[in-house]
Amino acid sequence: MSATAADTRFALTDEQARDLATQFGTPLYVIDETILRDKARTYKEAFAAAWPRTSLSYASKANSTLAVLRAVHQEGLHIDVASEGELRAALKAGVPANQTDLHGNNKQRAELEFAIQQGVRHIVVDNFAEIELLAVLGNTPSLMLRLAPGVDPKTHAKISTGQADTKFGFNITDGSAEKALLRCLELGLPVKGIHCHVGSQLLDPEAQISGGEFLAEFAIAMRDKHGWEAEEINVGGGLGIRYLDSDHPQDPHTYCRNLVAPLGAKLKEAGMEPTLAQEPGRSIIGEAGVTLYRVGVVKTVPSPTKGHRTYVAVDGGLSDNPRPVMYGAKYTVLHIPGTPRPVGELTPMTVSGKHCETDMLFEDVMLPADIQPGDYVQVLCTGAYNATMASNYNRYQRPAAALIRKDGSASVVQRPETWDELLARDIVPTDL
Amino acid sequence: MSATAADTRFALTDEQARDLATQFGTPLYVIDETILRDKARTYKEAFAAAWPRTSLSYASKANSTLAVLRAVHQEGLHIDVASEGELRAALKAGVPANQTDLHGNNKQRAELEFAIQQGVRHIVVDNFAEIELLAVLGNTPSLMLRLAPGVDPKTHAKISTGQADTKFGFNITDGSAEKALLRCLELGLPVKGIHCHVGSQLLDPEAQISGGEFLAEFAIAMRDKHGWEAEEINVGGGLGIRYLDSDHPQDPHTYCRNLVAPLGAKLKEAGMEPTLAQEPGRSIIGEAGVTLYRVGVVKTVPSPTKGHRTYVAVDGGLSDNPRPVMYGAKYTVLHIPGTPRPVGELTPMTVSGKHCETDMLFEDVMLPADIQPGDYVQVLCTGAYNATMASNYNRYQRPAAALIRKDGSASVVQRPETWDELLARDIVPTDL
Repeated sequence: MSATAADTRFALTDEQARDLATQFGTPLYVIDETILRDKARTYKEAFAAAWPRTSLSYASKANSTLAVLRAVHQEGLHIDVASEGELRAALKAGVPANQTDLHGNNKQRAELEFAIQQGVRHIVVDNFAEIELLAVLGNTPSLMLRLAPGVDPKTHAKISTGQADTKFGFNITDGSAEKALLRCLELGLPVKGIHCHVGSQLLDPEAQISGGEFLAEFAIAMRDKHGWEAEEINVGGGLGIRYLDSDHPQDPHTYCRNLVAPLGAKLKEAGMEPTLAQEPGRSIIGEAGVTLYRVGVVKTVPSPTKGHRTYVAVDGGLSDNPRPVMYGAKYTVLHIPGTPRPVGELTPMTVSGKHCETDMLFEDVMLPADIQPGDYVQVLCTGAYNATMASNYNRYQRPAAALIRKDGSASVVQRPETWDELLARDIVPTDL
Repeated sequence: MSATAADTRFALTDEQARDLATQFGTPLYVIDETILRDKARTYKEAFAAAWPRTSLSYASKANSTLAVLRAVHQEGLHIDVASEGELRAALKAGVPANQTDLHGNNKQRAELEFAIQQGVRHIVVDNFAEIELLAVLGNTPSLMLRLAPGVDPKTHAKISTGQADTKFGFNITDGSAEKALLRCLELGLPVKGIHCHVGSQLLDPEAQISGGEFLAEFAIAMRDKHGWEAEEINVGGGLGIRYLDSDHPQDPHTYCRNLVAPLGAKLKEAGMEPTLAQEPGRSIIGEAGVTLYRVGVVKTVPSPTKGHRTYVAVDGGLSDNPRPVMYGAKYTVLHIPGTPRPVGELTPMTVSGKHCETDMLFEDVMLPADIQPGDYVQVLCTGAYNATMASNYNRYQRPAAALIRKDGSASVVQRPETWDELLARDIVPTDL
């Protein structure tokens, strides 16, 4: 990879990588505080530049490390939480409850009770049973209705059909969304606005733009029909990041302009100027993080499809990054010599983990022909959906996370698990 | 599902399910001790009936809950471990080190040192670097060489080409396996035998049979060429289980006979009678476990492909069972009314989790049309690769596991995580 002007991904220098590996061991998640804060601030500014009243939340499911939540919140973002656990994490990070929004397609009663008691800002309501439950629980905070646009694929191919057939929200086209609004109003629940989220890691924002337009149309129709005026319209998250050099997501300024333009035009034409909201996760934290692994076994084997294949085994695997197995996710992998040396030509190799199964991590990545045990690789863009999805598969300890501070020093923000912790939940009945 | 004579899967009765949910909450992993022990014993007897000298190990990666390890060990199985953590689990469960075997394609030096110091029975050697390292470390226990058959796809289509192109072991056809053996002998390392594992959840044992034949041929060739005689030949695991009613794995007796026959014939013809070994995991624990979920939101939405689709949201998701997302795994899902009632006709529904993403768990499973919040579903055959692969995604607490004892009572063998534990590894730098 050659870093270009537009490349906003964090990458360690070789020296930094060696120092961190020595200091904290590997595998190691590393997050750069400066890049993280820059991304949060830039997104906020870009959105604010595109519309008079905006609200930006960070989707904490992407990475709910407390230090990340605190830093992002300090940059002026609210925190989206998708569970009681994520809400607890935000609170422990020092985020006031009234700057958090609760999501979820199957919120448990205890979860709602906890959120209400703490005083979250919004509850994003997903379904009719939740409306009824909220009415019973009382003390309801502002509600946002999660809507499923149910787009006609002929006119909006990119959102395609998936957006109607979803577990999330109230379908607009079949009338559920309107019914949900009316039911809330009937029950006297404080519906503040509407919400949709059309998909993730989208490099072309057409789907988000269409989703926003549908929300605007719905908001206008509800005002005209029922006199209810949306104070806030939330178009969710979804901006992609540069996993591969060949991925070219829009920069936040271009993206926010493109997203707001058609939606804003519709609203203005109807004489409405609600707050517009977004909730990016991956695009804030994804590129700010890398994973550092130590290279172990390097093995070249016969491959009927490739002639030969070289496997580079690292000291982690699907337990610290399940995304390649789960989603066929691709990453950029860079080599770091264990000690400084000139390295050979780059050649396609397969990076595998050390789990007792196929555990293919990164196929056909370019690594030097003379890569050797004791070298390192860093995997870019692992800030999102890595630490949060990590498991103890094969009884591995989950890795530490280090935060590179503004002065270049590193702080551990998630310590590795201990063996005692790994076995703490097991109870052997005395008579077994 | 109608249970047939051949159906060896554990399933809770409706009453049991309701009692357990009340007592321990949901989601809940449930393992039946009797079925687990029966499966371990039956497999051991079946193998012993098929060959004069056999050795059976349980692959603990499938489920390394300490109570499971102890029960399986009590039934006379050794324990396969694929990491230091799994070895620590086996030891803590009371399994003597000399009844454990250490696997791994990228064993760390510290892992090998720990295993040697504890006194494991076998180290299953994967690569040349490991051979050299073992020679340096000394005090080497018996070694098994992990081999990759590298089968000619024309004669053995089912193992096909994947077995040459693998991160695991020494390739036979390219000469690596022979070289590895000679290097071990040269270094005076105690090579006891050879090992291969051709794949998992195989309902047709042709691949395992072929793998075994290749090992036998290799063993015979090495004796004839170099005078080294394999004392043990381990053909790995891989026997499938009945995830769906339409899956029909062989019973252990048929399977062991089929597996041993051609391999044994080759060995006998050559005048060899080594110990034969297997290491099943899934086929011991998979069918002995279910997951119990509580039904929350039931939602029918328009679906362009299906007309309509009913989503049944449960109170777990990919964090407690990542296999549907990871492998497209299918499961049998059974309905349990929240309180006894006659239920409606079965109709295809989609069970989704409550995570803040698609989180599709089980598509097109048959559930009653009048399924409702407060009902339960149990998912069969989740004993393997569920608890061990669970994550805290969305800051969910990992569920408890209960063991149904022989007398019908239930013991918690893995307690759920506490909120404190969930946040224990996070450290916020004081100056952040």
